[in-house]
Amino acid sequence: KPHSSDWDRWFVMGLIGIVVGTMGFLMHQIIDTLFELKWELVEIYIQHGDFLTTWMYILGIGLAMVLVASGLVVFLCPSGSPSGLPEVIGYLNGASLRYIFNIRTFFGTFFSCALSVSAGLFCGPEGPMIHVGAVVGCGMSQFKSDTLRISLPFFTRFRNSADKRQFITAGAAAGIASVFRAPVGGLLFALEEVASFWDIKLAWQTFFCCLVAAFTTEVLSSSFGGFHYQGHFGFFKAEQRIIFWVKDLLDMSVLAFIPTIIIGIIGGLLGALFVSLNVRINKVRMKLFNAVKHKFFRQISKLLETLLLLVVTMTVTVFVPYFFSCTQDPEVHTFINSSEHSVSDHIPWDVSEYNCPPATTWVGPDGVINSNYTINQAAALLAQNGKQGIMLLFQRGIHEKFGYPALFTTLVIYFIISCWTAGTAASTGLVVPMLYTGALFGRIVGLTLVSLFGVQNDEYWAWIDPGLFATIGAAAYFAGVSRLTISLTVIMVELTNDVQSIMLIMVAVMVGKTVGDYFNHSLFSSLLNLKCIPYLEALPSVVHGKKKVNLELFSAKDVMKKCEIIHLKENIFSIAQMLNNTTYNGFPVVYSPGPGQEEVFLGSITRLELYMLLSNRQIFQSPETSNTSIPLLKYQQVTVEKVPDEGQMNSLLAKYSTDSQYQQLFINLEPYINKSAVTVQSHFSLHRTYAVFRTLGLRHLIVVDLQNRAVGVITRKDLISLQLEKKLIYLDVGKLDSDEELIK
Amino acid sequence: KPHSSDWDRWFVMGLIGIVVGTMGFLMHQIIDTLFELKWELVEIYIQHGDFLTTWMYILGIGLAMVLVASGLVVFLCPSGSPSGLPEVIGYLNGASLRYIFNIRTFFGTFFSCALSVSAGLFCGPEGPMIHVGAVVGCGMSQFKSDTLRISLPFFTRFRNSADKRQFITAGAAAGIASVFRAPVGGLLFALEEVASFWDIKLAWQTFFCCLVAAFTTEVLSSSFGGFHYQGHFGFFKAEQRIIFWVKDLLDMSVLAFIPTIIIGIIGGLLGALFVSLNVRINKVRMKLFNAVKHKFFRQISKLLETLLLLVVTMTVTVFVPYFFSCTQDPEVHTFINSSEHSVSDHIPWDVSEYNCPPATTWVGPDGVINSNYTINQAAALLAQNGKQGIMLLFQRGIHEKFGYPALFTTLVIYFIISCWTAGTAASTGLVVPMLYTGALFGRIVGLTLVSLFGVQNDEYWAWIDPGLFATIGAAAYFAGVSRLTISLTVIMVELTNDVQSIMLIMVAVMVGKTVGDYFNHSLFSSLLNLKCIPYLEALPSVVHGKKKVNLELFSAKDVMKKCEIIHLKENIFSIAQMLNNTTYNGFPVVYSPGPGQEEVFLGSITRLELYMLLSNRQIFQSPETSNTSIPLLKYQQVTVEKVPDEGQMNSLLAKYSTDSQYQQLFINLEPYINKSAVTVQSHFSLHRTYAVFRTLGLRHLIVVDLQNRAVGVITRKDLISLQLEKKLIYLDVGKLDSDEELIK
Repeated sequence: KPHSSDWDRWFVMGLIGIVVGTMGFLMHQIIDTLFELKWELVEIYIQHGDFLTTWMYILGIGLAMVLVASGLVVFLCPSGSPSGLPEVIGYLNGASLRYIFNIRTFFGTFFSCALSVSAGLFCGPEGPMIHVGAVVGCGMSQFKSDTLRISLPFFTRFRNSADKRQFITAGAAAGIASVFRAPVGGLLFALEEVASFWDIKLAWQTFFCCLVAAFTTEVLSSSFGGFHYQGHFGFFKAEQRIIFWVKDLLDMSVLAFIPTIIIGIIGGLLGALFVSLNVRINKVRMKLFNAVKHKFFRQISKLLETLLLLVVTMTVTVFVPYFFSCTQDPEVHTFINSSEHSVSDHIPWDVSEYNCPPATTWVGPDGVINSNYTINQAAALLAQNGKQGIMLLFQRGIHEKFGYPALFTTLVIYFIISCWTAGTAASTGLVVPMLYTGALFGRIVGLTLVSLFGVQNDEYWAWIDPGLFATIGAAAYFAGVSRLTISLTVIMVELTNDVQSIMLIMVAVMVGKTVGDYFNHSLFSSLLNLKCIPYLEALPSVVHGKKKVNLELFSAKDVMKKCEIIHLKENIFSIAQMLNNTTYNGFPVVYSPGPGQEEVFLGSITRLELYMLLSNRQIFQSPETSNTSIPLLKYQQVTVEKVPDEGQMNSLLAKYSTDSQYQQLFINLEPYINKSAVTVQSHFSLHRTYAVFRTLGLRHLIVVDLQNRAVGVITRKDLISLQLEKKLIYLDVGKLDSDEELIK
Repeated sequence: KPHSSDWDRWFVMGLIGIVVGTMGFLMHQIIDTLFELKWELVEIYIQHGDFLTTWMYILGIGLAMVLVASGLVVFLCPSGSPSGLPEVIGYLNGASLRYIFNIRTFFGTFFSCALSVSAGLFCGPEGPMIHVGAVVGCGMSQFKSDTLRISLPFFTRFRNSADKRQFITAGAAAGIASVFRAPVGGLLFALEEVASFWDIKLAWQTFFCCLVAAFTTEVLSSSFGGFHYQGHFGFFKAEQRIIFWVKDLLDMSVLAFIPTIIIGIIGGLLGALFVSLNVRINKVRMKLFNAVKHKFFRQISKLLETLLLLVVTMTVTVFVPYFFSCTQDPEVHTFINSSEHSVSDHIPWDVSEYNCPPATTWVGPDGVINSNYTINQAAALLAQNGKQGIMLLFQRGIHEKFGYPALFTTLVIYFIISCWTAGTAASTGLVVPMLYTGALFGRIVGLTLVSLFGVQNDEYWAWIDPGLFATIGAAAYFAGVSRLTISLTVIMVELTNDVQSIMLIMVAVMVGKTVGDYFNHSLFSSLLNLKCIPYLEALPSVVHGKKKVNLELFSAKDVMKKCEIIHLKENIFSIAQMLNNTTYNGFPVVYSPGPGQEEVFLGSITRLELYMLLSNRQIFQSPETSNTSIPLLKYQQVTVEKVPDEGQMNSLLAKYSTDSQYQQLFINLEPYINKSAVTVQSHFSLHRTYAVFRTLGLRHLIVVDLQNRAVGVITRKDLISLQLEKKLIYLDVGKLDSDEELIK
């Protein structure tokens, strides 16, 4: 029977889902409310064409928001920069990153993100929500906070790094599930991009977590709009739930694959360009800020950059539409006059109307209501928040609502500014800008088709609809930047409910990713590099010149470092000295199986475990004490996640490593070492070594010789592609260029 | 740059996609054509109520089909039983199964499946299509066939088991993608259930393969219906493409989760019952057939069982509707009389009309055409093929088309007969019966709600629609039988295009799986057990009494077997003797690093590699020959997948192991051994050993002691749960019951 009562794990998963779902709901509500308030305030000025006042108002409000948003990040988050997806990915890969899951980061990220989006920066809430979800996953499962100095006595069995990682994965998945209302897409995103290690059991628990998160967001959103109770508790309208719902599925011709491939190529090219530009901008930014020596001034200059960004964004948003005239909205604003669709006299004002004359409606002779509703195309595209913009672009049946000038202008502006925005000192997400930019050029391609072939109403040609190609463009560009495949396809289907176009989306994603991969790595991977987070790819890829290096030709000893050795019964003095003199985190423990025999490798012990052992004096023994009289420490006392008090530890080490009395005191390490530590022999091929290290998710790997004597250690950092390249270049250059196939 | 030119791999993936897509298309066409022909033939008899003639015709045709279908399996397929999903799953897990991917199995499975479904057995083409896809994946990538004795000189670099497994995974995924027209669902199904090992690169290539397969099926299906060209080449109608397209998305109330949970529970219970019944039936079947000693008679009795099954199925199909009267079809058969929708005088006859009076149409005073179309509910549900039945049940807005009697009767009949069908000597798929049975009881629950609350037209209550609950029921029962999660959800969405109900489906799947897991393992897993295929779960689960055994308390030496040792320079005589006397497939090679030192483990070599070495006389050497003068064999000569000529090999071995001259001839094994063979030490915890074995996908694992001397070997079979249980029970019983936590 496969049944096992893991109820506490499921309970925590559910809890994470509920909390993340609530956070996602709050995020949406805050953004919608603030965004609407802001534009309502200036409605009157825009309508009268008073753009300067509009600009001042919008900018003023925006500056206040961004000041807080950026301040939260600069002063509250670790190292003064917004941490997001790359950090979470790196952590789940096994890198040790500190402070990214504490409660200050949580609040900093959440509010910074909500305010940045509300202020009108070209960004979305997705990336930060993943991080918020991950923090919730970490916090809810651990039931303690070092920052707040609380530690509740619940679920202590999850206080180990393996379980923690699982809950963080689930939380991150729930973050996307909640913000996109795409439970399966979120799950797959987490599995494809965020998590490095997972199994079917984790997938299954994450599935539950995502479901709960999406459900919570749904239930709350169904009842509230802008924090007002609307009286529809628990009623999920398809209209609301499926964010970019496409109502008209189009019968498709095989010819549609031709523009799709073109869009895929453009998406890949633009995506690669975005990645390379963004990395360059971030490099310049880092250099500039690091040039500012004083910490406080550095923080201030980061703040100022964000403010400058807002000024530029707002100026563009308000003044660019000025150069566009009002155009008739081709959307059907004529209703059959029935009791159900009563036309209210006052249609609520929308930003897209800009300074166009207010619409009037009249009843035609055939009982049909007409309207001369006009919009400013550029205002519709620029001043809306990204989500509404995407909805407009995805809409079908409105072939020529947006013309080339508006689409092109917005595309250029959005591409450049969103590229600048990603990486500023405010918590900003990239998904909405990606979808939006993609939808823009997708619609341009679609519009070109319409220009060539006209608006088609024949069922065989109905697929020539810019709305369809906007969706495809969004997928292609998203793929070009993020290089996601399966999860992206599922997310697009969940967002649009358009299974009919799934093959077009898949082709666009394939082409976009392939073209992008030709030029550079994905954005997340590039950012991991840039941020110097040691990330181990699933497969090693070392490039020399333009060729891939065959790692089968190298062996484990080519990359290993010399290691320090501890004896099974070691004196305190040596241990303390070794800990002081090295930075390794794992040490091989050796012993001699018989008198006169050589010392062989028995198991490994970590730095933290040694710290914890050293801080328990009662287990020290003099040479003559028998092992049995020494008390044993409990598992929880030895295996911790960090040193409780670092200062005290250091002074303890200093004492042990100077006072010679500790040369006569020993610890018997036997009960505490990990005897199941996997080793490789020094002649192991490097490829295989990498596979063992990565597949088993190790942090350090002891290298032994044929007699099982510990001769070296390999750590994560030794296996990062860049490090490998450096090390191997020193070795035989002939091998690096070799292509020959070789016997194992 | 992540770019690497794997063009040949992609090419083969594309090729697999095209072939599998074509096979899927052919499968559908054959089934649709034959099924339609069959019922057209008896139309006239049914209409006149002549059921005996109908029965004789239908049965006669069916018997002919099933005779071929079953004959193909009994005489063509390995071991005379249809191989399907369990075999593919087992093979990809690492088990060695012979003949399952040869060309006879391919044709046998394909035509057997097409004919079984056409004959009217309660089964679908999905499972066999997965197998057909896997065979295509194997054949297309290897470009050789042992049965046909061809070996084309293409893509020889894929002739190794790792690459072969990848292509088989892709082929299996393409099989589902093609048959369900669900490219992403197929991919996820393969990853979740079929493949034991995969990485992001394989997922990405499988994605492409599935896309090509789905595209090929689409393009071909768009042009042909029943093998007639229809003139719509490359025009994909949403209606056709999305198999069970749900056109009306329903706004959902949170109350809908209550019946969903009930359906989930029923689905889980019925699913578990199905699994347990099916396993029992299969056990009885195996016992009965094994009692027949003579091979030919055994084959005949298998054939007879299938024929008997058909007689029962057909009798039920034809005669059960007799007890039901004709009912008005509530579906709207009234069209506004426009030029587009001209009503043909003769609506094509459908099986569901059974012996009901032919419909007449008349134009009402308001210009609306009315019709008194009636159907026989039971005929509609039983006599259609499963796919059309599911479509009927999923349909929304026809609340009371099917009443309790018809639904209940069909449910009972279908459940019992499909349980019998699965496992007979014909290639039958289970997915359609699962969806169908689930849809039946889902609709019953929905109908109960309608009975309680009436047909609701109010938007807040519109979700009370039996069609919606049929979909949920199908998902729940599918989950209850197969225990799939993510892929099932995605498949349901791809089949119905109903993202709006995704959360309900997820809840049903969750509940169904959880309830099912409480009682037994999934169907595939149970069949793996029944068929004695050594399958290694991702996590070991050994149960003693009712408790899970903590494998941390046992060590590698508790399960290892004694192993034979080969020296680095070994004489032919000993090698041949050892090969004759043991059945192991992997051997440790040892050597002494210095004079007088003990022999340590250096690497491993497989039985097949030894066979190949022994069949190359030129590498034998006498003790005094220097190593340098001996020719080296190429990698391809040594690493093969099976012995070219087994008989010759055996006589060679016999010669070597008897003639004493071979005691003086040696092979230097050094160039041929796998020096990167992972070892574990004998004190390693069993849990960790299992993890290393399973994660690295090993076939045998050498156990060494502290001095690196080979002391034992662990093979797949030693780690199967059942074997582990047996072995561990002999050991300390105290540990088996122990719950204590322990320091590493």
